[in-house]
Amino acid sequence: MKKHNFSAGPCILPQEVLKKASEAVVNFNGINLSLIEISHRSKEFVEVMENARSLVKELLDLPEGYSVLFLQGGASLEFLMTAYNLMKIDGKAAYFDTGAWSSKALKEAKLLGEVDVVASSKDKTYNYIPKDYTITNDVDYVHLTSNNTIYGTQFKEFPKSDALLVCDMSSDIFSRELDFSQFDLVYAGAQKNMGPAGTTLVIVKDEILGKTGRTIPSMLDYQIHISKDSMFNTPPVFPVYVSMLTLQWLKDLGGVKAIEKINKEKAALLYAEIDRNSQFKGFAEVEDRSAMNVTFNLTNEANQEVFDKLWNEAGISGIKGHRSVGGYRASIYNAMPIESVQVLINTMQQFEKQVHN
Amino acid sequence: MKKHNFSAGPCILPQEVLKKASEAVVNFNGINLSLIEISHRSKEFVEVMENARSLVKELLDLPEGYSVLFLQGGASLEFLMTAYNLMKIDGKAAYFDTGAWSSKALKEAKLLGEVDVVASSKDKTYNYIPKDYTITNDVDYVHLTSNNTIYGTQFKEFPKSDALLVCDMSSDIFSRELDFSQFDLVYAGAQKNMGPAGTTLVIVKDEILGKTGRTIPSMLDYQIHISKDSMFNTPPVFPVYVSMLTLQWLKDLGGVKAIEKINKEKAALLYAEIDRNSQFKGFAEVEDRSAMNVTFNLTNEANQEVFDKLWNEAGISGIKGHRSVGGYRASIYNAMPIESVQVLINTMQQFEKQVHN
Repeated sequence: MKKHNFSAGPCILPQEVLKKASEAVVNFNGINLSLIEISHRSKEFVEVMENARSLVKELLDLPEGYSVLFLQGGASLEFLMTAYNLMKIDGKAAYFDTGAWSSKALKEAKLLGEVDVVASSKDKTYNYIPKDYTITNDVDYVHLTSNNTIYGTQFKEFPKSDALLVCDMSSDIFSRELDFSQFDLVYAGAQKNMGPAGTTLVIVKDEILGKTGRTIPSMLDYQIHISKDSMFNTPPVFPVYVSMLTLQWLKDLGGVKAIEKINKEKAALLYAEIDRNSQFKGFAEVEDRSAMNVTFNLTNEANQEVFDKLWNEAGISGIKGHRSVGGYRASIYNAMPIESVQVLINTMQQFEKQVHN
Repeated sequence: MKKHNFSAGPCILPQEVLKKASEAVVNFNGINLSLIEISHRSKEFVEVMENARSLVKELLDLPEGYSVLFLQGGASLEFLMTAYNLMKIDGKAAYFDTGAWSSKALKEAKLLGEVDVVASSKDKTYNYIPKDYTITNDVDYVHLTSNNTIYGTQFKEFPKSDALLVCDMSSDIFSRELDFSQFDLVYAGAQKNMGPAGTTLVIVKDEILGKTGRTIPSMLDYQIHISKDSMFNTPPVFPVYVSMLTLQWLKDLGGVKAIEKINKEKAALLYAEIDRNSQFKGFAEVEDRSAMNVTFNLTNEANQEVFDKLWNEAGISGIKGHRSVGGYRASIYNAMPIESVQVLINTMQQFEKQVHN
């Protein structure tokens, strides 16, 4: 049976990417060796790394002066690296607390300096994006999580201030057109819109680095990674390769502009059904709804078993909500076809009919 | 043409592992989803992680009281984590300097405490393992690199002292039987005997942790990773899976005892040829020769082009020596078949005949 994979991450990737990645594991580019058994310094892999980097620059329309890195450790290690690279000694940073990942990020920053939580939506289980805040002039940087996977909220506008702007874009990068010149540092774990788990994309404005007066451990120092073209140590070869394939797929499809249109369409369809269907209610505030993670609950929890049986039978997987929110979460990342969204909507409608009878 | 892959790492993996890994990228365990598009918390992947952990314990015959982790960042991040987790405040550690990787390890440790270089073989381009050293009683731990890929040297005996013993075993773990009770912390990048680049194996004696008085960033804290079964953050799913397959392959083959016998045979054959052949000389001191990386030079550098042409024609790849040593390096890790070693030997003999005429 065909599966409809709504997993929040690691998540659905394009079928043609999976096919090419599978082939490369036995015979990469026809060289009779596997991608994963050749040196990362071979011309074949260096080319992969260069292509991946170029595709990021092209797809995001990055201005001059930004470096692109493929590292390890996920966003979780970036929480620490951000602070190590940008927080001055006796420094201070402003953090938006819009969910579990934001909280984890600011926890690590506190190890290296003062953290000013400029706004938090914790009071309502993070179901909205705070709009009322003041960023003081004395902070080294402002940090936010653009899309909150667990709660299904997303920043539509980004704060303006004189401080550097740092954005954890793990779950919505490459999903919508943005002016990247407003960001100074962007990072994203690969395992949503870019590739498999195991690599982290970092985009950093070169001129902001090396200004803290801090001694930074080598593996946490963006300048070292930049100077070695992401090969200071052995890079995660397979995740980088699959990311390159996915970025190529996105380019062939028409780039970020094209996928944004499709993403908007998928999200509109699904939110419309949630709002129409008597058996469901959305979790996030309407104006802050994420186009990537659609969170919703049953109006009558007693019907859970009925709904769970239906979507299971329809070949749907990965829509159980995060344990901290409950209910359901349909993640509709770039690679999610509109047909699968339609299958989910049909199942929701079938469910409504069934419990009405 | 069949390739004989002597790459130093990422390096050769068993053909059957590559085949299974390739299949899992399109359809994992027959679930009609790719391994790399399912949640790391799915029962399917949790089982992979558990199997991988059990196989490590079984294959290495680990005593009770040790935890096994699959992390990210390679040995390079472990250089820092080792110090963070074991170096007391105002502490001191003893480091053996037996090559580039040892030097990098001690550089990171210096950020957190005092480093006593107890012995170094730098005076002879690291072509031997120092045997004359004193470990003082005041160090928090002793650190060494068991096998030095670049120079082709390997510790046969490990230092005894009252301090904790830490070993970077990246390039020879699973290659020979060792008494692991002598080590307190062992780490190894996967990309030699265990799997593809992108995950790091860490084996740590639980009771040594949490004793430094230091606040450790979450991602660098072994206790946090242990408490979350290596899933504090999203693990590198594919590298962990391929590691599991490789460990299963090793178990099926008869385990570490069986592979050690084969490894000794391969190394003996190749070193015998180097010593016999008038056109080659070994780089490392005979008693310290590595069974994993065989380093050698031409007796007459002028013949380099002739030899390079010959091995290229024989389908041999990856035997160029590291830029800091020159000459050649044949890496004969676990997955390297004896037949490929024989092809290299034949080529060396053919070369000798050719330049003699």
